[in-house]
Amino acid sequence: MNEIKLFCPASVANVSCGFDVLGFCLEPIGDEMVIRKTSKKGIHIIKIEGQKLPLETQKNVAGVAALALLEDHPCNYGFEIEIYKGIKAGSGIGSSAASSAGAVFGINELMGKPLSRNELIKYAMKGEKLASGSAHADNVSPVLLGGFTLVRCSKTPDIIALPFPSELYATVIHPKIELRTSDARAVLKKKIYLDKAIEQWGNLAALVSGLYTNNFDSIKNSLVDVIIEPHRSALIPGFQELKKVAIESGALGCGISGSGPSVFALSKGHKTALEVQNGMNNTYKKFNIEYELHLSRINPKGIQIISSK
Amino acid sequence: MNEIKLFCPASVANVSCGFDVLGFCLEPIGDEMVIRKTSKKGIHIIKIEGQKLPLETQKNVAGVAALALLEDHPCNYGFEIEIYKGIKAGSGIGSSAASSAGAVFGINELMGKPLSRNELIKYAMKGEKLASGSAHADNVSPVLLGGFTLVRCSKTPDIIALPFPSELYATVIHPKIELRTSDARAVLKKKIYLDKAIEQWGNLAALVSGLYTNNFDSIKNSLVDVIIEPHRSALIPGFQELKKVAIESGALGCGISGSGPSVFALSKGHKTALEVQNGMNNTYKKFNIEYELHLSRINPKGIQIISSK
Repeated sequence: MNEIKLFCPASVANVSCGFDVLGFCLEPIGDEMVIRKTSKKGIHIIKIEGQKLPLETQKNVAGVAALALLEDHPCNYGFEIEIYKGIKAGSGIGSSAASSAGAVFGINELMGKPLSRNELIKYAMKGEKLASGSAHADNVSPVLLGGFTLVRCSKTPDIIALPFPSELYATVIHPKIELRTSDARAVLKKKIYLDKAIEQWGNLAALVSGLYTNNFDSIKNSLVDVIIEPHRSALIPGFQELKKVAIESGALGCGISGSGPSVFALSKGHKTALEVQNGMNNTYKKFNIEYELHLSRINPKGIQIISSK
Repeated sequence: MNEIKLFCPASVANVSCGFDVLGFCLEPIGDEMVIRKTSKKGIHIIKIEGQKLPLETQKNVAGVAALALLEDHPCNYGFEIEIYKGIKAGSGIGSSAASSAGAVFGINELMGKPLSRNELIKYAMKGEKLASGSAHADNVSPVLLGGFTLVRCSKTPDIIALPFPSELYATVIHPKIELRTSDARAVLKKKIYLDKAIEQWGNLAALVSGLYTNNFDSIKNSLVDVIIEPHRSALIPGFQELKKVAIESGALGCGISGSGPSVFALSKGHKTALEVQNGMNNTYKKFNIEYELHLSRINPKGIQIISSK
C-alpha cells in the first residue's frame, strides 16, 4: 500500500459530566486526508483545503503527531499529507484531533500496522498539545477508537472504549463565533468545591453505568455539568436558550462540546434528535449569528479508510 | 409474620476514588437484629448488646430511621427492636448503617413489604444523619442492596447497583483507635484542585467500567484516591505500611474504609486476599495498637433474614 485516503470524523469531548475524560465520535462531519509514501524521508504537508492552516510540519498538528510517531518508529521512506478540512478550526468538535489522529492512523496503515488504534493515541495527543498547549486525549480517543471513550489517565495514556446504546443520537450546533480555547480555559477556576466535585463524579460514574446497561434514565439524570458549564456557558451566546429547547424537545441532555462554542445534545432515537435539531434551529435563527447544525448517530468505528492503493 | 431476625452486614464506603458515592457490602461481619410487632404503637428499642448505645428511639440511629419510615407509612401497631452489635461503632465499616438499614428493612418485611430495598434507602439515611450529621447513602445502599452500589445523587436519592467480579475479595483491618468522624471531616478542604478532581473522576469512571467488564487491570489502576487519602491517612497510624504490604502481597488496591480508621484492600481471588491479610497482620502486630482483621468476599445480597415467625 502506497497511498491511503481517510475519513477523519469530528468528535464531542467532555460530554457534560466528563470534563477532560469523556468523548464520543460523530459520523457525518469530518475531514478527508490523503497520505502517501514518498522516497523523500520525513513528513511533508503538501496541501490543505477548506481551512487556512500552516503547511509547515512543525506548526501543523498533523505534522507534529506524525513526527512523534516516526521518532519512535523510524522508517527509510517518508510521507506526504493532503488535508481536506470539513471541520472548522475552533468549532469545539475536534478539528485538531481529526487531523492529528488521521495523520498517525494513515502512516501506521502505510507502515503495515505496527501499532493498534489505542497505541496511536499517544502520538495523536502530540498534535493536541500543539493546538491547545495540553496533550489531552478526550477528542483523539473517540476519533481513533470510535464510540464513547474514557480517558482514565492522560499521562500513561490509559484509554477505555465504552459501549453505548445504538439508539443514541447527537445533535450538534456550531455557532460561528470565535471562542479561543485560551479564553475558554481562562474562565475556569484552579480550585473547585469538593461538594460539587462529588456531584460531578457521581454523575460521571452513573453515565458510564448507563452506557453499559442502556439505561436511558441514568444517562439522562447524569448528563449534568456543575463544574465547567456554569462558567463557560456565558461565553456562548444563546446557550441557555439552546439547552432549554433541547430538553423541551426531548433530549436526554445538552451541554458544551469540548471548550465550545459548539453545543451538543444527546437523544434517544433519530426522531427525537430531529426534533431537537428543529428546536435548536428555530431558536437560534433569532440570534444574529451564523451557525451550522448536524445530526449524527454515535459513530462506532472512528477513522475509516475510504480507499487505498 | 410477627417477628423477624436479621443479619445486617458491615460495609466499606468511598472505595478510594469513589468518595461519598461508592460502597460495597461485606459478608462475615455484621449485627443481628430482632424486630417484632407490638400492639403498642411507635418504635421501642428494648435491648442493645455488644456496644453501649442509647435505647431512646430519638437518639438511636435505628430508632430514627424506623420513625422516618413510619411517618410516611403509618400503621396501627408498633415495633420493638433488639440490636446485637457485631460491628464496633466508629470502626469505619458502617456500624450505624447496619442498624439504620436493619431497622427499616425489618419493619418493611413485617408490614408486608410495601417498599423495595431501594426505596428503603432514604429512610435508612435518616439514621446516618443522626450518626454523622449528613444523610449520606454510601454505606446504607450496599447494606440494603448488597454488592457494589453507586450514589449518583444523595438528595433524590438515586442509587445504582453495580455488578462486580465474583473473584473480588476484601481484606479489612480495624485498628482499635478512636477516630471521630468529625475529626476525619475536619482535615478535608472545602475546595480541591480541578486537576486532581479530573484524575479522581477519571479513576472512578474506570473503576465502574472495570466492575462491569471484570477487567482487573482497570480496577487495579483506578483504585487510587488523590483527594481524600492524602489528608486522612495521617490520622491512621501505620496506614502507609499497611498499604505498602497490601500492594506487595498482590492486592489490587488499598485505601481507607469510610472515614477510617479501618483500612480495606481489594484482591483478585481468596488466596491473594489471604496473603494480604497475613501481610497486614505481620505488619500491624509491630504497632502497639489492638486490631481486628477480616477477610470477606463481596456480599452480593446485603441484609438477610435469619428467621421469622
